[in-house]
Amino acid sequence: MSKKTIIVFSGEYDRLMAAFIIANGAAAMDDEVTMFFTFWGLSALRKDGKPAAVEKKTSTLQKMFGGMLPKNAEKMPLSKFNFAGAGRGMMKKVMKDENVMTVAELIETAQEQGIKMIACTMSMDVLGIAKEELIDGIEYAGVATYLGEADESNVNLFI
Amino acid sequence: MSKKTIIVFSGEYDRLMAAFIIANGAAAMDDEVTMFFTFWGLSALRKDGKPAAVEKKTSTLQKMFGGMLPKNAEKMPLSKFNFAGAGRGMMKKVMKDENVMTVAELIETAQEQGIKMIACTMSMDVLGIAKEELIDGIEYAGVATYLGEADESNVNLFI
Amino acid sequence: MSKKTIIVFSGEYDRLMAAFIIANGAAAMDDEVTMFFTFWGLSALRKDGKPAAVEKKTSTLQKMFGGMLPKNAEKMPLSKFNFAGAGRGMMKKVMKDENVMTVAELIETAQEQGIKMIACTMSMDVLGIAKEELIDGIEYAGVATYLGEADESNVNLFI
Repeated sequence: MSKKTIIVFSGEYDRLMAAFIIANGAAAMDDEVTMFFTFWGLSALRKDGKPAAVEKKTSTLQKMFGGMLPKNAEKMPLSKFNFAGAGRGMMKKVMKDENVMTVAELIETAQEQGIKMIACTMSMDVLGIAKEELIDGIEYAGVATYLGEADESNVNLFI
Repeated sequence: MSKKTIIVFSGEYDRLMAAFIIANGAAAMDDEVTMFFTFWGLSALRKDGKPAAVEKKTSTLQKMFGGMLPKNAEKMPLSKFNFAGAGRGMMKKVMKDENVMTVAELIETAQEQGIKMIACTMSMDVLGIAKEELIDGIEYAGVATYLGEADESNVNLFI
Repeated sequence: MSKKTIIVFSGEYDRLMAAFIIANGAAAMDDEVTMFFTFWGLSALRKDGKPAAVEKKTSTLQKMFGGMLPKNAEKMPLSKFNFAGAGRGMMKKVMKDENVMTVAELIETAQEQGIKMIACTMSMDVLGIAKEELIDGIEYAGVATYLGEADESNVNLFI
């Protein structure tokens, strides 16, 4: 048993798949896994739909950034051949036929396996994302927490 | 002597160059190097042209994905300034003048140096790529194999 | 105290921010940090404006590549939602309001903290970038130097 960390910077569907497949694979082998979500990677943690009443102090600019991000993991584009969502749709169809899990399913599995998911608070500030918009069961921290985890890990990836 | 792993997720010419230059450099210093090709990175391993007779059970959707991928490493776009291949052409011209190896040459060197190249079987299923389409001398495995190698390595990169 | 390395391959404003925030965070915790700038990441090290008199032997092709790169770190695009610079402008506005440092400030802090910044000489050749175009206080080396540093480090990232 060892520790692993993955910084999830990218918000693309295929990169998210890669990150969660590695994380879930390691957790299945009894590794302790920490995923640190920053910048566009935060979209993976978004709840479906808007929260009922969020008291935000975010500026108009932050609202613009927040508004441009995909509403949740299943809405994220591919890094290649996305074609306004058609590419992602095709890939998801093939994945279903091949019994490959969607990102939403991978996230659920990650939470069931006890993978520690941390949202980067600085990125949340810059992109104007409130805690209420993110899924439950995650932690909130900054770069120092990440570095502490990475120091104890034998595999550290940036995706 | 130590071990290194590189996950090659990206299919862009410049990122492929970076991956193979690091891998070949480490192998030249007597390190044991494993490269794990997943998603778009699999295009680097494609044979030139189509195999004579491939019995594939792939669906139309997989054929579409497979068909969109570059035919081999030398056909891959740059991640920036590609201009429908003109940028890559320019970069390759400069590389030749500066005696920098092309990706095709880097792959050949990697094989000569005994670098272990593994194609991710799950990505092959999703993208509809058959073994017959990939170059000889590579291995086929999944995330558990990658994690086993990474656990024994002191440098693990995701490119 | 331990060592860390970061390969900075990407030239996008947001990825640069991530790289320098991690590097500066580690340096603040007394880690010894080496950043290795290669390909598009070299734009982060460019001086503002053109040097007075550079005797370059670069070809027209290299001039084209060099000319296409942003003039310095603050001119780099976002990896997403850049909108010809408008996205970066918005993000920088929010960053100022939230007291988040710009990349130019992060680079300055990195130098003050004694972070070792290495420009990849092979990439400089391919992209036609001369030493005179890059900021002072950096080192010049190739992949072997990177690998030597990585071997002594407990966290190695590729950004």
